[in-house]
Amino acid sequence: MTSNPKTRTESDTMGTQEVQADRYWGAQTERSIHNFPIGRDTFVMGRPIVRALGILKKGAAQANADLGELPQDVADLIVRAADEVISGQLDSHFPLVVFQTGSGTQSNMNANEVISNRAIELAGGEMGSKKPVHPNDHVNRGQSSNDTFPTAMHIAVVLELNERLYGSVGKLRDTLHAKSEEFAGIVKVGRTHLQDATPITLGQEIGGWVAQLDYALGEVKHAETGLYDLAIGGTAVGTGLNAHPKFGDLAAQKYAEETGFPFKSAENKFAALSAHDALVQVSAAIRTLSGALMKMANDVRWLASGPRNGIGEITIPENEPGSSIMPGKVNPTQSEALTMVATRVFGNDATVAFAGSQGNFQLNVFKPVMVHAVLESIRLISDASLAFNDNCAAGIEPNREKIQHNLDINLMQVTALNKHIGYDKAAAIAKKAHKEGSSLKDAALSLGYVTEEEFGKWVVPLEMTRS
Amino acid sequence: MTSNPKTRTESDTMGTQEVQADRYWGAQTERSIHNFPIGRDTFVMGRPIVRALGILKKGAAQANADLGELPQDVADLIVRAADEVISGQLDSHFPLVVFQTGSGTQSNMNANEVISNRAIELAGGEMGSKKPVHPNDHVNRGQSSNDTFPTAMHIAVVLELNERLYGSVGKLRDTLHAKSEEFAGIVKVGRTHLQDATPITLGQEIGGWVAQLDYALGEVKHAETGLYDLAIGGTAVGTGLNAHPKFGDLAAQKYAEETGFPFKSAENKFAALSAHDALVQVSAAIRTLSGALMKMANDVRWLASGPRNGIGEITIPENEPGSSIMPGKVNPTQSEALTMVATRVFGNDATVAFAGSQGNFQLNVFKPVMVHAVLESIRLISDASLAFNDNCAAGIEPNREKIQHNLDINLMQVTALNKHIGYDKAAAIAKKAHKEGSSLKDAALSLGYVTEEEFGKWVVPLEMTRS
Amino acid sequence: MTSNPKTRTESDTMGTQEVQADRYWGAQTERSIHNFPIGRDTFVMGRPIVRALGILKKGAAQANADLGELPQDVADLIVRAADEVISGQLDSHFPLVVFQTGSGTQSNMNANEVISNRAIELAGGEMGSKKPVHPNDHVNRGQSSNDTFPTAMHIAVVLELNERLYGSVGKLRDTLHAKSEEFAGIVKVGRTHLQDATPITLGQEIGGWVAQLDYALGEVKHAETGLYDLAIGGTAVGTGLNAHPKFGDLAAQKYAEETGFPFKSAENKFAALSAHDALVQVSAAIRTLSGALMKMANDVRWLASGPRNGIGEITIPENEPGSSIMPGKVNPTQSEALTMVATRVFGNDATVAFAGSQGNFQLNVFKPVMVHAVLESIRLISDASLAFNDNCAAGIEPNREKIQHNLDINLMQVTALNKHIGYDKAAAIAKKAHKEGSSLKDAALSLGYVTEEEFGKWVVPLEMTRS
Amino acid sequence: MTSNPKTRTESDTMGTQEVQADRYWGAQTERSIHNFPIGRDTFVMGRPIVRALGILKKGAAQANADLGELPQDVADLIVRAADEVISGQLDSHFPLVVFQTGSGTQSNMNANEVISNRAIELAGGEMGSKKPVHPNDHVNRGQSSNDTFPTAMHIAVVLELNERLYGSVGKLRDTLHAKSEEFAGIVKVGRTHLQDATPITLGQEIGGWVAQLDYALGEVKHAETGLYDLAIGGTAVGTGLNAHPKFGDLAAQKYAEETGFPFKSAENKFAALSAHDALVQVSAAIRTLSGALMKMANDVRWLASGPRNGIGEITIPENEPGSSIMPGKVNPTQSEALTMVATRVFGNDATVAFAGSQGNFQLNVFKPVMVHAVLESIRLISDASLAFNDNCAAGIEPNREKIQHNLDINLMQVTALNKHIGYDKAAAIAKKAHKEGSSLKDAALSLGYVTEEEFGKWVVPLEMTRS
Repeated sequence: MTSNPKTRTESDTMGTQEVQADRYWGAQTERSIHNFPIGRDTFVMGRPIVRALGILKKGAAQANADLGELPQDVADLIVRAADEVISGQLDSHFPLVVFQTGSGTQSNMNANEVISNRAIELAGGEMGSKKPVHPNDHVNRGQSSNDTFPTAMHIAVVLELNERLYGSVGKLRDTLHAKSEEFAGIVKVGRTHLQDATPITLGQEIGGWVAQLDYALGEVKHAETGLYDLAIGGTAVGTGLNAHPKFGDLAAQKYAEETGFPFKSAENKFAALSAHDALVQVSAAIRTLSGALMKMANDVRWLASGPRNGIGEITIPENEPGSSIMPGKVNPTQSEALTMVATRVFGNDATVAFAGSQGNFQLNVFKPVMVHAVLESIRLISDASLAFNDNCAAGIEPNREKIQHNLDINLMQVTALNKHIGYDKAAAIAKKAHKEGSSLKDAALSLGYVTEEEFGKWVVPLEMTRS
Repeated sequence: MTSNPKTRTESDTMGTQEVQADRYWGAQTERSIHNFPIGRDTFVMGRPIVRALGILKKGAAQANADLGELPQDVADLIVRAADEVISGQLDSHFPLVVFQTGSGTQSNMNANEVISNRAIELAGGEMGSKKPVHPNDHVNRGQSSNDTFPTAMHIAVVLELNERLYGSVGKLRDTLHAKSEEFAGIVKVGRTHLQDATPITLGQEIGGWVAQLDYALGEVKHAETGLYDLAIGGTAVGTGLNAHPKFGDLAAQKYAEETGFPFKSAENKFAALSAHDALVQVSAAIRTLSGALMKMANDVRWLASGPRNGIGEITIPENEPGSSIMPGKVNPTQSEALTMVATRVFGNDATVAFAGSQGNFQLNVFKPVMVHAVLESIRLISDASLAFNDNCAAGIEPNREKIQHNLDINLMQVTALNKHIGYDKAAAIAKKAHKEGSSLKDAALSLGYVTEEEFGKWVVPLEMTRS
Repeated sequence: MTSNPKTRTESDTMGTQEVQADRYWGAQTERSIHNFPIGRDTFVMGRPIVRALGILKKGAAQANADLGELPQDVADLIVRAADEVISGQLDSHFPLVVFQTGSGTQSNMNANEVISNRAIELAGGEMGSKKPVHPNDHVNRGQSSNDTFPTAMHIAVVLELNERLYGSVGKLRDTLHAKSEEFAGIVKVGRTHLQDATPITLGQEIGGWVAQLDYALGEVKHAETGLYDLAIGGTAVGTGLNAHPKFGDLAAQKYAEETGFPFKSAENKFAALSAHDALVQVSAAIRTLSGALMKMANDVRWLASGPRNGIGEITIPENEPGSSIMPGKVNPTQSEALTMVATRVFGNDATVAFAGSQGNFQLNVFKPVMVHAVLESIRLISDASLAFNDNCAAGIEPNREKIQHNLDINLMQVTALNKHIGYDKAAAIAKKAHKEGSSLKDAALSLGYVTEEEFGKWVVPLEMTRS
Repeated sequence: MTSNPKTRTESDTMGTQEVQADRYWGAQTERSIHNFPIGRDTFVMGRPIVRALGILKKGAAQANADLGELPQDVADLIVRAADEVISGQLDSHFPLVVFQTGSGTQSNMNANEVISNRAIELAGGEMGSKKPVHPNDHVNRGQSSNDTFPTAMHIAVVLELNERLYGSVGKLRDTLHAKSEEFAGIVKVGRTHLQDATPITLGQEIGGWVAQLDYALGEVKHAETGLYDLAIGGTAVGTGLNAHPKFGDLAAQKYAEETGFPFKSAENKFAALSAHDALVQVSAAIRTLSGALMKMANDVRWLASGPRNGIGEITIPENEPGSSIMPGKVNPTQSEALTMVATRVFGNDATVAFAGSQGNFQLNVFKPVMVHAVLESIRLISDASLAFNDNCAAGIEPNREKIQHNLDINLMQVTALNKHIGYDKAAAIAKKAHKEGSSLKDAALSLGYVTEEEFGKWVVPLEMTRS
């Protein structure tokens, strides 16, 4: 019994533990707070994981009830409490950080304890009494941290991908696609090796970015399918000990119903506990996406460089003063934020792949750091894509005058002559023009390799773009 | 005219260049040798790339001939020379290293020059004369380095994956799968957090590795499909300038026929030149595979640790004396080689992803370093998997005595009691046994939580494995 | 004039902007909030950067006043406001996130605006009026974001290293050092390749970890010296335009006085703005430190593995129930948290090195993401080292019985015979003992290679440790 | 006895093994060839490691002889054979690859066997007889692979750094330094955020690169000092068992004498065997160097971009035709090779750091992959720096006409007015000029903020550079 009205006595197999009276968590959560004061400001397990744990415990209770493993009334209480976890009402009762037990045991117990106590409260019982709803025997029924936490990892990431990433990056993709169509008729200089090359249209240039985003999004979506296989049903080591033989399948079905995604119990639970390769693959696909975004953002800032001494073929919105010392300067700040995000995503992916390789025997104990890094990458890419879309991409406009000027002085249109006069003579024309600072046409005519009429017929930038 | 009988005068748009008389290459290859003396010992573009360039040039000539872009006799000569490139006869005529022009231009020209000169030789002409087969106007017809080199990259990687990686890793996978079935009845201690856990079978333990390999191989195969999209037909900037409009599709069809893989011309050539995201994805999937191999190899060496003071539950072949100072020592050297390979593959993947993010405008100029790293990873994973298979996996045997002993003294079988007496009482039994060094059964009976009969009925390791 | 009493009208060169009335920030900060809603929950620039910006602005004002570039009364007001920034009182007025302008311009302006308005308030003026203290002309006097933000980066990291990392990791190091001395006399089995090897003492084993920490800490401290070189005085591009020629040196001197570290104005300001190689080096040294911590934490959990089927030569504190399903299980959770941190630090370092390579011309625009990652690594390593120290390292105890047993059955003591009977005969003894499961002595005597007396004289574990 | 005259029978503790008669290696090397067919084409341990092994064995024999642990005549024979290893004469007798035992045991034995047999041959004995020079008892006297291989790693890397890297990168540094001084008077546009900024001199711009190289080289040299601490003397587990107590110190002294570098026996041998943090630090410093080279090479290609539609402020040598399809194109191929090398070095460093974190107990078994990656990075950076120096940096020339034109139209000189008329008015001038496409002066005068005389006095590009 606690003498302090501000606290309540909770217990676990190691003994009793005082807990703040207005918190639903129990002894193990409290121990974790004290044992892992690591990165407390910014590394608390966030909404996506807490929500997924709620979904997980709700479906587990339903499945156990259906299988006769839990009394229906106990299951109902668990479901009610879990629904509050899902909705976010109880987020402040999930104080644990990422850097804890590598199996996520303490976050699993945090969910067990909070749901147990809230269910007890709903039933009019005494919090901490573990009656009528026991955190282990009921809320965690047929489960182990080793199968629940990776299950929650998968649910959380699937939801974040679908509710956050696809929409945000998709919006940017659609904006760029529209720009690509809008600027389909604008012929401009192509560039390879940073050097002038044969013409393309601005629409084609932007269309290349769109194609990269389409491919990368497709790969993320493919990788997502690996997350539908859940560890649930494997319990402690993958054998499913203490779970009803049909529990894994049925629980997964509940999660599918709750979320709308085709979750199922993984065929091989031993792999599902001891490795998180599907998550590594999702991380890698997000890295590829961020590489594509980096290329696009770099192109945008280079094309918009200037105002007078850069390439300057497009303009982007001026969102803020660019410099605290150089008055009137406008900088490609959205590109900068997005590419910084890309470098962060690369780092997160390095963390995920490293951690993913470090499993031993029946468990990989780098679970929380892996899922956290993936969720962070999803969040950052999504936020930055939206910001880039709204504050930069939507406002991209061609600088038609500059584009035309650059095209007019470009020498690489000479390539169109290859087919007619051969590579060697075409090269001679380009070299002469370059050396003398003359136009391509003047050099061509002066060398006598083509007539003026031929030049006019053969060297047509728009046709060279094949658009 | 050269005065040196040991050399021949070749020329390009920059002038003439002496070349060793017995080499087929021309001026640009020769320049590259002098300009890029970088990592010459170990970074010469190898067989897979040279072969792919041969396939590429052969199919291009056939396609051009079909489309009326090349005289049939010129095409035939190119095909004959290209066939020699494909077969490996001319490998010594491809001296260039990876660290050259980032578009692979010089290797593309190396192929153009060698095929041109060899074709000229076949036709009885004078090498270096560019007649009747010109390296640019004929061999490179309708092509640019910017679309040919990435096309060759894809072809090379697809072939290496199929001819090398899948078979090698698949062989190891099959060995492990057979072991998994062979040892299905051997019950042993499971381990989580490196700590004793509930029982599993040795078959289940090995089966987890197999499941990881199956997943990872599946992901590599999925990523491979992205390589079927070829840049060919895009020429210099993706527009296809100077190529017959049907050239890309037809050439890709030729490659499909030559190799048996469903290559096609990529829908968006701009992306195909300026990014290599499909290759990044292949690299990432290989990284996941190497992570799975690392986990397996680590488990193997830990399970085989000892001989007396480790886990010692399996034995592995003794292939060599283990120590130059400790007589009689045998070490898990195949695990060591394989995990070293894994760290190398992780590094190669970091290179690929970094390089892949660095494209600008219409070109990514990190092509050679990317394909080299992926091919190296394929080679190393394949070689190391075969070596591991032959010299370790195939010889894994259970140490039945040790396994049984470990199982007998394990405390975690207590978990089977949870359902009958609750988590808290079960914990008390385990703690008592641990503290007193007694058996689980003795502790259980002494606490009076179960009868001897109940214990015998409820705590059955084999049943706990659900196998 | 604003009609809303809850807001105040602020302005910059782009026009006016409403700002919450109780916030000190101005128009540019407000714009940034709207333009960069990226990772808002967890990526707000934190205390170390805000404090460093306060130190920076204070010293700048003092230097400018000393040089006659600012009226003393204006400087005094700035100093008073900056002191409040330093102390943390105004942290809630620094709302900007990491993913903003890559030069940190908006955080620099945030500091300029907050200090300006607070100084105006202190002077009894009207906030937003920029009188008598203008954010650009006075607070940012002689400065540019391009030199101030990297200066703040260096100050922040130096302070965090000294006030957080060295003490935390040092405490762990000292605990381990004490354990190393305490256990100097405990002879145990050494292990190489995970296999039994010749004896060492537990003190030597732990001493190896201490030596790694000492080396790594030394390297971090060495790398820190590169941070003493500050960009201040370089202004916009490194030339120092608009700063008094002596400003950089004098401001750096002020920072040295304020902090006690030997800051100075960098010799080459062009490099100081366009690259952050010293920060990359700090990040790398922290990575090395985290690699050392990972090795130590892995050893600890392996040595403590069991309780019955692992190595079990040491015991570590039981801090929490280990499993939600396996009663009585105790896991090496502190090792897990610490190694998870290590993987995160590796990822952060990958971010830093990638970002650090991406400068162009006179500026690297990945500044905020770089400093954030380094500060995060410092924070995590420090927190996790302390947690590990208090909850694990301090409680490491030898399991003397197990240690002695393991040593007794070890075969590798045979190595001591090499010198007396040669490597080949020694090997034969070990092989015989291994094969027959006999003791080393029995095998040795039975082969007749040594007498019992010789064996007793030559094979003495403690002597073999040379401790 | 072998019946095959082409082979010779060698033996080790596992039995006999046929070896090609003309090879000096013995049974263990032969076994390794068969057991580790991994990356055979390109991953054979190369010259630097073989040479270091030669130095190692020579010094060890000398030290043992001095200490009375080896008869002088045996030592002399070893020294003679080792000298041949050092000189490179016997390189073809070192066939083993990197991916072998993770301790490098087999390469250590390769050295023991080759030196033993060659010494036997010199003594007129029978190869394979191990008389009068035994590979283990004599050549490996007082040593273990666990201390010799890391010793050889350190020696090899120190020599390669000094004989290869410092000179090569230093030559490039000196070329750039000379350019920096040569172009000290050329005023040009500065660029931040890729946007026009205040003026700098071309000398200052290049000087920033030089400062980065100086810093990075300094850090590599600092990290090198960590390599002077050698594992020698630690033998199998760090205790020095079987080595004469003075052997480590004396052998290290021999290496110092042989090489001229201050090698010494490491204070803590346990750390020296179980971790390679000094090598990780060297790798990291080389990564920083490669990041600096990347930034420089990127600046060079951007500054040289064009010829007509890029920045074009410098010209670089035209070394080869740039395109197989675009005649007359010249590309910044040396920048491309160098930046590709940089991405490879980043990947190698990721391998090294990962591998370095994976030690267990008394040994890290990722030794060969670590040293190989570091040596490869040294080689590539050195080669590429030389190639870049000779074929690019040495030929950098300013395009004075373009530089002046760009400077004339630049708006950011307005910054010089801040001090005179305030940031806000200066911004208004820049915005007006930008909007109207007018010159800065016209805008300034038209707004009436300055007189023509003031403008002429205050806005002086050269003065703005403070050069």
